[in-house]
Amino acid sequence: MVGLSAKGAATRERIVSGAAELLRTEGIVHTTLDDVLARTRTSKGQLFHYFPGGREELLLAVAELEAARVLSDQEPHLSDLTSWAAWQDWRDAVVARYVRQGPDCPLHAVMTQVATGTPGSHAVVVALMSAWEGALRTGVEAMQAAGEVAPEVDAAAAARALVATVQGGVQVLMATGDAGHLEAGLDLALAGLRPRGSG
Amino acid sequence: MVGLSAKGAATRERIVSGAAELLRTEGIVHTTLDDVLARTRTSKGQLFHYFPGGREELLLAVAELEAARVLSDQEPHLSDLTSWAAWQDWRDAVVARYVRQGPDCPLHAVMTQVATGTPGSHAVVVALMSAWEGALRTGVEAMQAAGEVAPEVDAAAAARALVATVQGGVQVLMATGDAGHLEAGLDLALAGLRPRGSG
Repeated sequence: MVGLSAKGAATRERIVSGAAELLRTEGIVHTTLDDVLARTRTSKGQLFHYFPGGREELLLAVAELEAARVLSDQEPHLSDLTSWAAWQDWRDAVVARYVRQGPDCPLHAVMTQVATGTPGSHAVVVALMSAWEGALRTGVEAMQAAGEVAPEVDAAAAARALVATVQGGVQVLMATGDAGHLEAGLDLALAGLRPRGSG
Repeated sequence: MVGLSAKGAATRERIVSGAAELLRTEGIVHTTLDDVLARTRTSKGQLFHYFPGGREELLLAVAELEAARVLSDQEPHLSDLTSWAAWQDWRDAVVARYVRQGPDCPLHAVMTQVATGTPGSHAVVVALMSAWEGALRTGVEAMQAAGEVAPEVDAAAAARALVATVQGGVQVLMATGDAGHLEAGLDLALAGLRPRGSG
């Protein structure tokens, strides 16, 4: 967004969030660029001013927005994992988020429409995973500092484990509508973080 | 297979395993029914005798075969999870299997070609998950009987958690080529099974 005026940034943000809402409600196959223009009251010239790459670039921006929502929907817990109660609240927020989301993952839907393997789509996923794992790692390290998680636990590996568990649980939830795997996965992973000999 | 003679069952099995090998090596988009006939030295009449539903029914049979392989590749460990060493061997076998498999999951590839939501495709997935979770649950219960896992652990939930963790880790492995999430996920889940106070 370097070089955009405040007004330009607001216009761009209006286009992206409007496109994201359309894609969420109408589905990606039923949404055209013209629908986005109508919904966001934007001219074709404006849209291509902010997204010279057209559809692909707009979809990438929507993917970035949806990726940011994956994380913001886990707040305020994700940024404050400093007690077992906070970890439990985070676990509950994650389960509630994906139960609410149901069978259709907006980020997944957008990503299937962006040419896979393009640097842009890869970067969105890498950035999401990295930020998510970074926050969880910070949480594990905070628990280690507080003496609640054993010092020999590899905090980065634990963060990877938690993200993988969420992914697998959400995959089952999306396929079956049942959150049992997600819940059980998170519960077992959190049990694994508790120190041996903690009773 | 009710009603098939031994010879008929062998022919059917030859067609299914030949089709599976073709799909694994050539990829699903490049494989036609004619390729399967040539590879398995089968006439069109024979093929439709064993698979009256044609391509779709043959693909479902291949999906069943690949689902069975998901489980058999975890043997002999999966059926003998009676010590922590056995669980560790199982964990290593799962990681090795999916590292070997790499970015292309044959079961996933076949399933994307079978009309999703058909009773047949749904049944293949449900049967796989059920058998997989059943074996893991039996393993957790064996460890409980041996006093190695706390009696209050919900063995069925632990089995669901392990399957979800494998799914999520494999999803990352398929996308990135990195087994770190799968390994970390399994390690943390197994740590969660160890009893509190076991030192």
